[in-house]
Amino acid sequence: MGIYPEPLVELVDQFSKLPGIGQKSATRMALFVLRSNRGLAEGLARSLIEVKEKIRFCSVCFNLTDKDPCAICRDDQRADGTLCVVETPGDQMALEESGVYRGRYHVLHGVLSPLDGIGPEDLKIDRLLGRLEREKIKEVILATNPTTGGETTASFIAGLLSEKNPGVKISRIALGVPMGGDLKFMDTMTLQHALKSRVQIPQ
Amino acid sequence: MGIYPEPLVELVDQFSKLPGIGQKSATRMALFVLRSNRGLAEGLARSLIEVKEKIRFCSVCFNLTDKDPCAICRDDQRADGTLCVVETPGDQMALEESGVYRGRYHVLHGVLSPLDGIGPEDLKIDRLLGRLEREKIKEVILATNPTTGGETTASFIAGLLSEKNPGVKISRIALGVPMGGDLKFMDTMTLQHALKSRVQIPQ
Repeated sequence: MGIYPEPLVELVDQFSKLPGIGQKSATRMALFVLRSNRGLAEGLARSLIEVKEKIRFCSVCFNLTDKDPCAICRDDQRADGTLCVVETPGDQMALEESGVYRGRYHVLHGVLSPLDGIGPEDLKIDRLLGRLEREKIKEVILATNPTTGGETTASFIAGLLSEKNPGVKISRIALGVPMGGDLKFMDTMTLQHALKSRVQIPQ
Repeated sequence: MGIYPEPLVELVDQFSKLPGIGQKSATRMALFVLRSNRGLAEGLARSLIEVKEKIRFCSVCFNLTDKDPCAICRDDQRADGTLCVVETPGDQMALEESGVYRGRYHVLHGVLSPLDGIGPEDLKIDRLLGRLEREKIKEVILATNPTTGGETTASFIAGLLSEKNPGVKISRIALGVPMGGDLKFMDTMTLQHALKSRVQIPQ
């Protein structure tokens, strides 16, 4: 190196930090930015700053939002009484894009993982129990990913809820989603199927 | 849409403008930015602005640089007398990374393309002829891409040079680079081979 202009090397480095972007893709992207008009670079730069400045967690469902509570929690067109519990904001977005669900959400921000020291107190599980006390919830749909961590977390929450809120129906999205997969990268059809054929957990 | 926070939608849109980045990759990158600390977003934003502010073309070889003339044109360790002619700054970078070439460069900024209305006057061909008059050039290596446009441009320049500068050796990089390929995305071994087995164009 040293032969390349420092700002270009720096931009390639910065792009390489993004997920799925290697040295070659980063170089291609940096050269594209150089070739394009100034507006492209400025637009992306502005977006990056705005996203960090304006987006925070919804105080009700812990989804990402620029207004608190978030658009879904504020929307009175949506059905109260049903909570869809997901791992991350990305999972919530993927489900929302499938268009089949019209209830409310709750984002856990992770899964139980004893080996990594992540216990129930590190997730938004207390807040979920709090919502069940305050809101008139009839059903909780457990839509964690079908991975070891996601399944463990779903079982844990199912156990907790059937003990503390025996009147509430608990369901799990159907295993139309392939095992080991990730909701964020699934196609809409699979997600629709998974939501529609959800099965009640025996209590 | 509408359900997602506006700044997030905006960032996904901006990422989607980059080459090779579709909706899913852009979403993955935007969510990663949201999850990461503020420094990552700010660092990338700063780099984007700096690259557009600081990088311009070298007035000698038309490579990208933050100081004029560029590091390669200023470097007195490099061999004078040989010019390697490439289409774009990306191609120049790829060749430079192969490490086999220690002479000077000349960037054309495109190829001849009569259908798109791109003629010799739109490329840095006049400036190449100017350098041959001023600098003591013994060899011109034509390293345009082995595509229709690149081959046409190489032939055109070869004809022009053998007419105006009959004493100068003209060579073309070996066709170790596969036809239809692009120098920017080639591996170092292929590029080294292509440079080493370059063949003189009969004059």
